[in-house]
Amino acid sequence: MSLTQSIHRAVQQGPDRLATVCGTRRQTYRELAARAARLAGALRALGVAEGDRVALMAVNSAEYAEFIVGTWWAGAVANPVNNRWSAPEVAYSLRDCETEVLIVDDEHLDRVPAILAEAPGVRTVVHIGTRATPEGMLAYEPWLAAAEPVADAARPWDSLAVILYTGGTTGFPKGVMLSHLNLWSSAVGRMAEFPALRDSVTLLVPPLFHTAALGKMITQFITGGASVMAPTFRTGAVMQAIQDEKVNDIMLVPSMIQMLLDDPTFNDYDMRSLRRITYGASPISASVLERAMICWPGTEFFQAYGMTETAPVISISGPEDHGPEARESGRYRSAGRSCFGVEVRIVDDAGNELPRGTVGEIIARGPNVMMGYWKLPEATAEALRGGWMHTGDGAYMDEAGYIYIVDRLKDMIVSGGENVYSAEVENVLARHPGVQACAVIGVPHEKWGEAVHAIVVPRAGHALEAAQLQAFCRERLAGYKCPKTVDVAEALPMSPAGKVLKQVLRKPFWDGRDRKVS
Amino acid sequence: MSLTQSIHRAVQQGPDRLATVCGTRRQTYRELAARAARLAGALRALGVAEGDRVALMAVNSAEYAEFIVGTWWAGAVANPVNNRWSAPEVAYSLRDCETEVLIVDDEHLDRVPAILAEAPGVRTVVHIGTRATPEGMLAYEPWLAAAEPVADAARPWDSLAVILYTGGTTGFPKGVMLSHLNLWSSAVGRMAEFPALRDSVTLLVPPLFHTAALGKMITQFITGGASVMAPTFRTGAVMQAIQDEKVNDIMLVPSMIQMLLDDPTFNDYDMRSLRRITYGASPISASVLERAMICWPGTEFFQAYGMTETAPVISISGPEDHGPEARESGRYRSAGRSCFGVEVRIVDDAGNELPRGTVGEIIARGPNVMMGYWKLPEATAEALRGGWMHTGDGAYMDEAGYIYIVDRLKDMIVSGGENVYSAEVENVLARHPGVQACAVIGVPHEKWGEAVHAIVVPRAGHALEAAQLQAFCRERLAGYKCPKTVDVAEALPMSPAGKVLKQVLRKPFWDGRDRKVS
Repeated sequence: MSLTQSIHRAVQQGPDRLATVCGTRRQTYRELAARAARLAGALRALGVAEGDRVALMAVNSAEYAEFIVGTWWAGAVANPVNNRWSAPEVAYSLRDCETEVLIVDDEHLDRVPAILAEAPGVRTVVHIGTRATPEGMLAYEPWLAAAEPVADAARPWDSLAVILYTGGTTGFPKGVMLSHLNLWSSAVGRMAEFPALRDSVTLLVPPLFHTAALGKMITQFITGGASVMAPTFRTGAVMQAIQDEKVNDIMLVPSMIQMLLDDPTFNDYDMRSLRRITYGASPISASVLERAMICWPGTEFFQAYGMTETAPVISISGPEDHGPEARESGRYRSAGRSCFGVEVRIVDDAGNELPRGTVGEIIARGPNVMMGYWKLPEATAEALRGGWMHTGDGAYMDEAGYIYIVDRLKDMIVSGGENVYSAEVENVLARHPGVQACAVIGVPHEKWGEAVHAIVVPRAGHALEAAQLQAFCRERLAGYKCPKTVDVAEALPMSPAGKVLKQVLRKPFWDGRDRKVS
Repeated sequence: MSLTQSIHRAVQQGPDRLATVCGTRRQTYRELAARAARLAGALRALGVAEGDRVALMAVNSAEYAEFIVGTWWAGAVANPVNNRWSAPEVAYSLRDCETEVLIVDDEHLDRVPAILAEAPGVRTVVHIGTRATPEGMLAYEPWLAAAEPVADAARPWDSLAVILYTGGTTGFPKGVMLSHLNLWSSAVGRMAEFPALRDSVTLLVPPLFHTAALGKMITQFITGGASVMAPTFRTGAVMQAIQDEKVNDIMLVPSMIQMLLDDPTFNDYDMRSLRRITYGASPISASVLERAMICWPGTEFFQAYGMTETAPVISISGPEDHGPEARESGRYRSAGRSCFGVEVRIVDDAGNELPRGTVGEIIARGPNVMMGYWKLPEATAEALRGGWMHTGDGAYMDEAGYIYIVDRLKDMIVSGGENVYSAEVENVLARHPGVQACAVIGVPHEKWGEAVHAIVVPRAGHALEAAQLQAFCRERLAGYKCPKTVDVAEALPMSPAGKVLKQVLRKPFWDGRDRKVS
C-alpha cells in the first residue's frame, strides 16, 4: 500500500471535506480520489507502467494534488519539476530519470519546445489550462474525461514515490529518491510530536516541487485537511487567501515572513484564523520573530530543519522554543531537537560523535532517509556512508539535544587558521538597527587565506557605514570574526526557497581562483 | 536502525528522565541504555547472533524493559512468553521458534524444569530475582555486571523485532512476527492522531507479553515517558501506584475498570493525576463508562481496537466519541475509526467491500500489519490474503467511517437461518439494572440448529429471573435474537486480558458435538 491510503481513509471518514482550494475551484476528497483514479487510468492508457516516472511542471494548483495522487494511484513515480530551472537543467533531469510523460500548465507551456529539444525521450506532453493546447499535446481535461478510472495500484511502502532533483546550482542535479515510507514516516513522526490541527486549512506558498511543501500537502492528506494553493508568493494575495479561506496553518521562509510584515497593507487583512506558522530553510532574526509574534498575537511558531534527502524534516523547534525565555537565551535560534523517528549525531570527519557544544557535521538516520540518488551509486554511498545521511551542515548540540546550525560547512570561512562560521557573524550584524538583511562570505586574502566580508542591505531611512558596523561587531565578537570589509547593497541574491545565494556573492571575488573548502 | 533509536533519542534529549519505575527502583533513560548495552554484550557472549530469539518469562518489571531494549540492542528478537500458559504450551512456543536463551524471574523459577523437559533446545537459563539461583542457571545481575557493553546492532527497520504467540486456547499457538517498523508505525500513527501527553507517566497493568502493553511501553520510549510496572492486577495496588507515581495515562480492559470502580476503597485514593484511560479488548457497557466518567471526572477516555497481528491498533475512538452525545447515539460502543496508516474495509467472504451498515469481516492493511506467522506460510497466506490482514471479527461501518464490532465471527449464533451477533444481545442484557455481567452463546437446538443462551451475573442485592430478562430483551430485540434460555452464575470465566472465555461456557453444551462455525 502506498500513500494513496491516506486518500482512501479521508474518503471513508469525510468524503465531503475539502481537499484543495485553487482560486474559485473547491475540490472534496471524494472528487480528488475520483479524478486521481481517472488520471491513473489515463496514464495507464499511455503505457505508463508501475515504477515509470511522470513529470509535472506547474505552479501550485488543484491539478498538482491530482498529479501527485494520480501518479501514485497508477503505481508510477512523481517527478515534480523545479520550474525555476533553465531549460537545459530541466531537460537534464527528465533525461536522467527517463521521464516519458510531461504535464505542463499554462505558465510553462511556452518553455516546452526548448525543453523537448534537449529531452527527446519525452514522448507525450499533457497541457493543463485555459490556453489553446498546441498541436501534438494532449489537453488535460478531455484526456481525463475520456479515461477509465482504474483501481489503486497500492504499491509497497518501500517503493519509490517521488524523484526530486536538487543541487542545480552547482554541478549536475541529483535525483533524490524518496519512498512512500520515507514521506509517510516523516509526516507522521512530526505529527506525533506536534499534532496537526483537527481542521487544518493550510496555504501552500512554497512550490510543491520542494519537499517542504510536498510534505505539508501529505500531512493534509493524512489528516483529511485542506490545501489552499498559492500559485506564486505575492504578499497581498497571501494575506487575502489567509483571510478568505480562514487559513490556520502556513509554512513560510523567514524572508517571506519579513515581506508580509513589511507590507503596508498588513493591517487591512483579518488573519486571526492563523494558529500556526512554520518556517525553515534559513534562520529567522530575533527582530523579525519578535515583530511576527506581535503582529500575529494568537499564532504559534515552529521552526523545521531538514533537507530533501530526509523527506524532509530532521528537527523541529516548537512554540515553547519561541517564547520570551527562548528568545532571551538564544534558544529560538536553534533548529530544535530531532523528531520522533530521526536519530541525529554531530560528528567529526571520521564519523565520531563529538562532545556537546562542539561544531561538526549533522548526520541523521531513520525511516525518513532517502533511498538514494537516482543512478548515482557512488554519490549515494558517499552521502549515506555508515547508514547515516551526511547533511553537509555544520552544527553543535547543547546538553538538552538542541541543534544549533552554524553554517553549511562549505560556507565556513577559514581565516588565519581560525574557523569563522558565517551565521555567527550574520546573527550579530542582523541585530544592528540599521541592517535589514546581510550575508557574510569569505573572500581571498593575501595574508590570512580568507578574510571575512559582509554584504549588508540597509533598512529604509538608515545610512550604513562600514566602520560603524565593524565597531558594532567588535563589541560582540572575537576580532578575527569581524568583517574586514563591508559592502552596502540594495538587495541580496535569493534562491526561490529564500536562501541567500552565497555562490553569487562569492563569484566576483573568487573567479579564476581555487577556494579551499574545509 | 531499530526501535532502539527511541532510546538513543531519549538519552540525547533527556538522559535523566525516568524510564521505568518498579517498586522502589527508579531507572533513568541513561541507566536503561547502559544496562541494555551490557545485556546485549552478555547475550552476544552467550553466542546469541543477530536474528536469534531470546525469551523472557516474567511479570512486568524494570528488567522487562531491559530485556526488550537489550535484545534489540544485540540485534536479536524478543520472545516474551505468555506466563499464563501451561508448561507444554510454553515449551511448544520455545521449540517452535528455536529459542535457546530463556530468562525467568522469581515468580516463574519453579516452572523451569517442567518447561525444559519439553524444550531441550533451551541451552541457557538466566534467573532474575532475589531467590537463590538454581544450579545450572545464570544469575542476572552478576551476569550483567561481568559483561562488556556493546554497540547497538541497529538492525534494519523491516527486520524482525518480536515473536508473540497467540491462539493458545485452540489448536497450536501461532508465532506472530512483528518488525521494528510494524511496532513503530503503529505507535507513531496513533500518536499522530491522539498525541501523547508531554510528560507521560503510564502504569503498565496488562502483561507485557501482550502487544497492547508492549506497544504502550514503546510509545513511552518514543516520547521519553515513564513506565510504572504493575506486576499483577490488584485494585488497591493499582490505585496506590496511580496516587504515588502521579500516573496520568493508563490502559485497562473494561473488566478492570469495573473492578476498580467496585472497590470499596476507591475514594481513599487521590487519582486526580489521571488524564487518560484507554480501554480495549472488549466493549464497555454504558453504565460502567458513565460511572467511570463520574468517578474520574478529569479523565479522557479512549477505546482502542486491534490485535497482535496489527501491532496492535486498527482503530481508536477518542474523547469526542465518549461524550454525552456519543453515549446518547450509541457511538461510544463503536471501536472508532481507522488510525493514520491503517486502511480498513468491511468485506464479504469473497473479499468485496460491503455497503455501510452491512456486517462483514474487518480487514486491515498498512505498515503495522505483521510480517507473518513464524514458519507457517499457509496460515500467513490465509490471514494476509490479498495483502490484507483478515481479523476474523465481524463489524459494520457507518457513514462516517466508525466501526461497530458485532462479534468475533466465530461467536456468531446461527439460529433458524438467522444470524444473531452475541454482542448485540449482550449489550441489551447489560442495560438491565440487575445485570452485572453477561455472556451470550449459541447452544445446540433440535429445531433451530442453535439457540441463543445467556449466562448472567446478578448485581449484588438483585435477584434475576429468566422470564423477566427475556421480557426485557423482547422489548428491545427481534424475537429470534432473544435468549431462549438463561442461566444465572456467580461469575464469568475470563482470560487474563479480560475477555470472557466463551469456549469454556460453550463446552458443557457442545462436548461430543460439532458446532458449525459460519
